[in-house]
Amino acid sequence: MTPPTTGLPAENTTDNNDHLVQSDDPEHPANLIPSLCAKFWTLGWVTGTGGGASIRDGDLVYLAPSGVQKELMKPSDIYVLSLAAQAQSLSRRQRVYLRSPPVYKPSQCTPLFLAAFTKRNAGCCIHTHSHWAVLVTLILEQQGSKEFRINNIEQIKGFGKGFQKSGNLGYHDTLVIPVIENTAHEEDLTEFLEEAMDKYPDTYAVLVRRHGVYVWGDNVHKAKTQCESLDYLFQLAVEMKQLGLPWITDIEPTIPTRKD
Amino acid sequence: MTPPTTGLPAENTTDNNDHLVQSDDPEHPANLIPSLCAKFWTLGWVTGTGGGASIRDGDLVYLAPSGVQKELMKPSDIYVLSLAAQAQSLSRRQRVYLRSPPVYKPSQCTPLFLAAFTKRNAGCCIHTHSHWAVLVTLILEQQGSKEFRINNIEQIKGFGKGFQKSGNLGYHDTLVIPVIENTAHEEDLTEFLEEAMDKYPDTYAVLVRRHGVYVWGDNVHKAKTQCESLDYLFQLAVEMKQLGLPWITDIEPTIPTRKD
Amino acid sequence: MTPPTTGLPAENTTDNNDHLVQSDDPEHPANLIPSLCAKFWTLGWVTGTGGGASIRDGDLVYLAPSGVQKELMKPSDIYVLSLAAQAQSLSRRQRVYLRSPPVYKPSQCTPLFLAAFTKRNAGCCIHTHSHWAVLVTLILEQQGSKEFRINNIEQIKGFGKGFQKSGNLGYHDTLVIPVIENTAHEEDLTEFLEEAMDKYPDTYAVLVRRHGVYVWGDNVHKAKTQCESLDYLFQLAVEMKQLGLPWITDIEPTIPTRKD
Amino acid sequence: MTPPTTGLPAENTTDNNDHLVQSDDPEHPANLIPSLCAKFWTLGWVTGTGGGASIRDGDLVYLAPSGVQKELMKPSDIYVLSLAAQAQSLSRRQRVYLRSPPVYKPSQCTPLFLAAFTKRNAGCCIHTHSHWAVLVTLILEQQGSKEFRINNIEQIKGFGKGFQKSGNLGYHDTLVIPVIENTAHEEDLTEFLEEAMDKYPDTYAVLVRRHGVYVWGDNVHKAKTQCESLDYLFQLAVEMKQLGLPWITDIEPTIPTRKD
Repeated sequence: MTPPTTGLPAENTTDNNDHLVQSDDPEHPANLIPSLCAKFWTLGWVTGTGGGASIRDGDLVYLAPSGVQKELMKPSDIYVLSLAAQAQSLSRRQRVYLRSPPVYKPSQCTPLFLAAFTKRNAGCCIHTHSHWAVLVTLILEQQGSKEFRINNIEQIKGFGKGFQKSGNLGYHDTLVIPVIENTAHEEDLTEFLEEAMDKYPDTYAVLVRRHGVYVWGDNVHKAKTQCESLDYLFQLAVEMKQLGLPWITDIEPTIPTRKD
Repeated sequence: MTPPTTGLPAENTTDNNDHLVQSDDPEHPANLIPSLCAKFWTLGWVTGTGGGASIRDGDLVYLAPSGVQKELMKPSDIYVLSLAAQAQSLSRRQRVYLRSPPVYKPSQCTPLFLAAFTKRNAGCCIHTHSHWAVLVTLILEQQGSKEFRINNIEQIKGFGKGFQKSGNLGYHDTLVIPVIENTAHEEDLTEFLEEAMDKYPDTYAVLVRRHGVYVWGDNVHKAKTQCESLDYLFQLAVEMKQLGLPWITDIEPTIPTRKD
Repeated sequence: MTPPTTGLPAENTTDNNDHLVQSDDPEHPANLIPSLCAKFWTLGWVTGTGGGASIRDGDLVYLAPSGVQKELMKPSDIYVLSLAAQAQSLSRRQRVYLRSPPVYKPSQCTPLFLAAFTKRNAGCCIHTHSHWAVLVTLILEQQGSKEFRINNIEQIKGFGKGFQKSGNLGYHDTLVIPVIENTAHEEDLTEFLEEAMDKYPDTYAVLVRRHGVYVWGDNVHKAKTQCESLDYLFQLAVEMKQLGLPWITDIEPTIPTRKD
Repeated sequence: MTPPTTGLPAENTTDNNDHLVQSDDPEHPANLIPSLCAKFWTLGWVTGTGGGASIRDGDLVYLAPSGVQKELMKPSDIYVLSLAAQAQSLSRRQRVYLRSPPVYKPSQCTPLFLAAFTKRNAGCCIHTHSHWAVLVTLILEQQGSKEFRINNIEQIKGFGKGFQKSGNLGYHDTLVIPVIENTAHEEDLTEFLEEAMDKYPDTYAVLVRRHGVYVWGDNVHKAKTQCESLDYLFQLAVEMKQLGLPWITDIEPTIPTRKD
């Protein structure tokens, strides 16, 4: 009943390590991914099986399968793999799962989630097809831009300052989210996502043109609240555009006079 | 208690085949149609008794009645008919039901659902009055167009390539959905829907001008997720129109450089 | 324990006829008004205690109180009055209740609901502050118009042809909803609502400028589905306006060729 | 087990006064704050840990902690402080809590909530990041304005006339909500909020530029319904702006002719 410590699949056995996705704890990743995805469905982030979420607990990575209705997902639908075992794999494109669901295929988002875990030590990564995210990339495309930039909005404080930095962005700081071009196959996005991570070492998100956004955080709480804050800002940005209001402004800070 | 094997109605008997809509299985069509329609109501797809859904299980077709509040539907409200028996009927407009609810009338959508089942071997067909769908048909009307066309959006991958073809559309593919003109009586749409199916053999949906959309799929999962993806694209298209962004673009594919 | 048959209040007694609002049947008006209002709250129709609903069951009229949070209402909050007793009242502005909740005040909407019951024999009347309704009245105000008119939209079929007429409007019919000007006190709207009912004998709804809409029907089902259909059309109309699309068009009917 | 009557923290003891947040009554502030915040989350008011709510019950003030997901809050997450003890504090910026949750930090909103309690004797104060509120402040910024003004909309009646005044605003009254500039640190807003309260003695809300809104009321019911009414008006105002409709108009009152 113990999982293979090497992280290699339990070949030639009938043991599928189902215990890895069986828990009474609602905070267990195999329970949390379905409940998060059901919530994301109501927000329009994972419409029509698009988008998803992955959680890392130490060496173990929990992943939703491909093509599942996100509001109907069950813990038994979840894939589990070992980061350490994956790192030893000869090919980046081949993945070995500790536990697989009986009927599904692995998600094409898998290598993108893994990039957040390996390059950023993230504890959770969320991918949405939010139409606010897509509209922002379309507006930026018309401007020939590969960066979403917004400043002087309170909700910007919802983001951490960056990888291995403590504290959050401030109200007057400019939040910068890189945009990468979409590829025909989602797996092929991986190198461009990693490139963006290298170029923007402090970002917690990467927009994908005409596709959506990847957002991560040190843990589920941070990934989810950063993803919410970002979607809020994307929606605000689209509405500001419709009203002719600029995303970047030069605001004189308001200084408190009282010292008490 | 056994249903008539001929599919003809149990005339001169009091047997209404109620067992056909009685099941403890939430995946049984008589349970699934009410739960799907309740969900669709929250999405604004079946407002004010408009719209609906039908499921085919082998030869049996399960149908919501006319004029029912879609979020309050019960399994006992469901009609059941036999496709084989219907095919033997002398008139297309006369339908014989294996099972009828006690108080309702059959839906005018019935022949349109049957078209998806007989001409496309669909397992489920959904009809929505989504205002995004209606707005798209109005925008196209102003352009004198009878086709919704959009390309280079990730969500397009949510659609199958076409009838009896395997695989899904790609990111760069153009999704084409025909638009038919609305008729005074919904049943009269049938010939135009069938015509559109003939002219667009690979489409899984037909827009109805100033009315809504019919979407089908090989099974409930595919019909529902295609319907969600389409509604997402209709909403995006309306918002793109408001922002002055074109639905069809010429995007240079982004080619991955890494071979691993 | 029997209610006073005269419909006069049970003066000098401690009997408040609480049994009139106590029932295990979810379809009982005292249970239905709270559940409907909770649903309407999620639709944005009864924000901030605005709006409401009333049901008539024979001679008895069930009413929500003033100033209650609509999504939190309880059966014990409901007022009950007798139409017959009310008709004998010397003053239109004085109302005698068979049953009153212990802490609330009667709603200012009461005489408007009563107008629908007495002049139209309605079984249910709904009042919303839907911002789609308000926006439609504002757009019409700029055009100097006192009528909302829309045609050639499928959802128009959601309305009955008119008082004591059978059947519903058709797709090509023009739905006409009169607009009355708002008054400082909601009770004062009554005469203008009644005037509009006289001038538009077949309407099931009256818009109130900068305020919202009153919608009724022969029963709860019809009032609710007509209210939903109307809100759908108001939303569509605002979006059409934003896209520069006209509400009234001249559409050539599409005639079916097949006779089968 | 009795709380310190001085309101000072129970130093050198292990007693954290947890009983202050333990109750079976759903109307107890420690239960009400989580259920209200969960509702506000669905309205988009407290996205990504932004915003919050505080309730005062006599001398005791109940506060949500900083950085918590508002739809997941639990009674055990709540801070409690004594207004009287706080008033004796040497520094405005130092606060002593009767009861603190084990893992969180106090919210930066705390002094702003306290301002509503001490300067207005409010029973509840709500802070939202509603994007309608933010958009209104952005539109006003472009106009160089520090006041949101709207009149002749029915929902304006949802507001009280002012501090220690009885009755509500009327339909033709102009609702005026002051706008203060945002500061880098939320606590620093306090003096500007208090300044706005002094300058606008009858307001129940203060907008914060590019940030959101603070709304209070004599009790939870009033704070919540005023906050809902205000958000409704902000949304309407943004939509009116998009349609080119003015917020302030000169409307001739409609006078009833009937005297009965």
